[in-house]
Amino acid sequence: MADLRGGIDLGGTKIQTAIVDASGEVVGQARQPTPTEGGPEDVAAAMVAALREAAKEAGVETGELTGVGVGSPGNADGKTGVVSAARNLTGWEGSFPLADNLKDALGAEVRIGNDVQVATEAEFQLGAGREFQSLIGVFWGTGVGGGLILDGKPWLGRGAAAEIGHIVVKRGGADCPCGRKGCVEAYAGRKAMEAEARRRHDDGEKTDLFKLMEKHGKPRLTSGIWERALDHEDDLAEELIERAVEALGTGIASAVNLIDPEAVILGGGLGIRFGERLMEPLTEEMDKHLFVNERPPAVRVASLGDLGGAIGASLLVSR
Amino acid sequence: MADLRGGIDLGGTKIQTAIVDASGEVVGQARQPTPTEGGPEDVAAAMVAALREAAKEAGVETGELTGVGVGSPGNADGKTGVVSAARNLTGWEGSFPLADNLKDALGAEVRIGNDVQVATEAEFQLGAGREFQSLIGVFWGTGVGGGLILDGKPWLGRGAAAEIGHIVVKRGGADCPCGRKGCVEAYAGRKAMEAEARRRHDDGEKTDLFKLMEKHGKPRLTSGIWERALDHEDDLAEELIERAVEALGTGIASAVNLIDPEAVILGGGLGIRFGERLMEPLTEEMDKHLFVNERPPAVRVASLGDLGGAIGASLLVSR
Repeated sequence: MADLRGGIDLGGTKIQTAIVDASGEVVGQARQPTPTEGGPEDVAAAMVAALREAAKEAGVETGELTGVGVGSPGNADGKTGVVSAARNLTGWEGSFPLADNLKDALGAEVRIGNDVQVATEAEFQLGAGREFQSLIGVFWGTGVGGGLILDGKPWLGRGAAAEIGHIVVKRGGADCPCGRKGCVEAYAGRKAMEAEARRRHDDGEKTDLFKLMEKHGKPRLTSGIWERALDHEDDLAEELIERAVEALGTGIASAVNLIDPEAVILGGGLGIRFGERLMEPLTEEMDKHLFVNERPPAVRVASLGDLGGAIGASLLVSR
Repeated sequence: MADLRGGIDLGGTKIQTAIVDASGEVVGQARQPTPTEGGPEDVAAAMVAALREAAKEAGVETGELTGVGVGSPGNADGKTGVVSAARNLTGWEGSFPLADNLKDALGAEVRIGNDVQVATEAEFQLGAGREFQSLIGVFWGTGVGGGLILDGKPWLGRGAAAEIGHIVVKRGGADCPCGRKGCVEAYAGRKAMEAEARRRHDDGEKTDLFKLMEKHGKPRLTSGIWERALDHEDDLAEELIERAVEALGTGIASAVNLIDPEAVILGGGLGIRFGERLMEPLTEEMDKHLFVNERPPAVRVASLGDLGGAIGASLLVSR
């Protein structure tokens, strides 16, 4: 029987699953919206349904999988399989034994990891970071998350390393969704950008951002809406994206000054959508703050796209 | 014959040498001012003289040492023993084969390392960081340097890691001696603090800083002069030290958010002098920006004092 592993990327808006073979090829995949009502049990049930669908596409039962990995938000404890304080998920402020719950339903061993760390691992093993031994993964989306690979291995610190979104770029600066001030995410996170756009729109600044959002039936300013607004040369959208790129470039440069890695891999919803388009202003911004700017790290856009998280989660199994 | 190693800490103002036994005890030491005229040959000659003096105190010839380590500023290449771009040293803009030059004069093998990295290593192996497996060394002096120990080993990146002084704390902020803007060192480095004090004094602000400097016959605002000014409740000194602590606390918190180490070790001339006195405001400042502030890293003052750099340099030999 083939060595097939399952991977589940548990996000705030969607659950992406994949069945991955030993060479890293995706042989089945499925996606479900993340339940917005109920609690952890309901989320786990949706994860099970989505993985079963992917397994069906791959022609296997979930019980035949070598194992299943989960990339989770919040505080994901790899040893106990418990996920706590996953605040982007409904009713998940406390702790929930996610691995045990899934194992019972799927009939396979389940390993839990941090969502952005496993996505970084996927890019390192199979994606845009393959040729490097040290890299920083920067996931620019709703928030700004990160992952570190040092000397070919994940660096987790005491379990909470790589919070690149919470490097401070301006003491006393903008309010961050984390409750602090001046973090990268306060300027570059999609959620913070939307809040700022809403504030400025309410103050009377002209922008088509919210008209575009309604026209396309979106509940929020998705990366696609931001792209459309840029294509329309919307002044506010241009200004807020520029501000985001400045914060990202500064924060990444600070991280590079500290770690001196071979590469930076830019992923996440906004990172994948805008990576190529904004690569020049981003690297120019980094260059202003790099201490050894004559040999900057390679900066690459994540190459596994939306499936990176699920593929990375499946890699938890083989360890 | 005893296993004795030599260590040389090459600083911008002084050359500190030590003879260290296998248990890390200092059995001889000597110090010389760093030549302010001439070039690398003259600096190397002063290093040789200072190490000979330390060896004499220890009752050995330099040729009997197991080896000699050097902690050097600038770009210190451990493989070739060449030091280049040591801009704090007179006439050392280019490259100089320091290890070979010293080896010929001392009759012992010579290893070269980065000055703050070896001081970090000394605190990790023998000083305030002994009980930890991961730490960030922060050397608060003329500039702000750093060193990283991850998983019990130095992390050098591509050779220039741990530049904690050049983490940005304020985009578009104060001018840094490195030529960039808003770095930690722009607010906290002794050199930058003195330049700011001079500027404000010339603009008519009241301060006793420069009177104290002249009274005590110092050519610059040393850490001792800053301490005296604080003891006199000098307003400008208090303000600039507070500003330095804010920048340090913010920059260290950003580094902790990225690395999540067990400990932060604070050394350097200002760090050793003010570490205990300013520990509370420093950790309060860090706390404002720590992403996981319910379990901050331990923060300790370096315990090997002025000899840490020379002891750390001697540790290069055994590797």
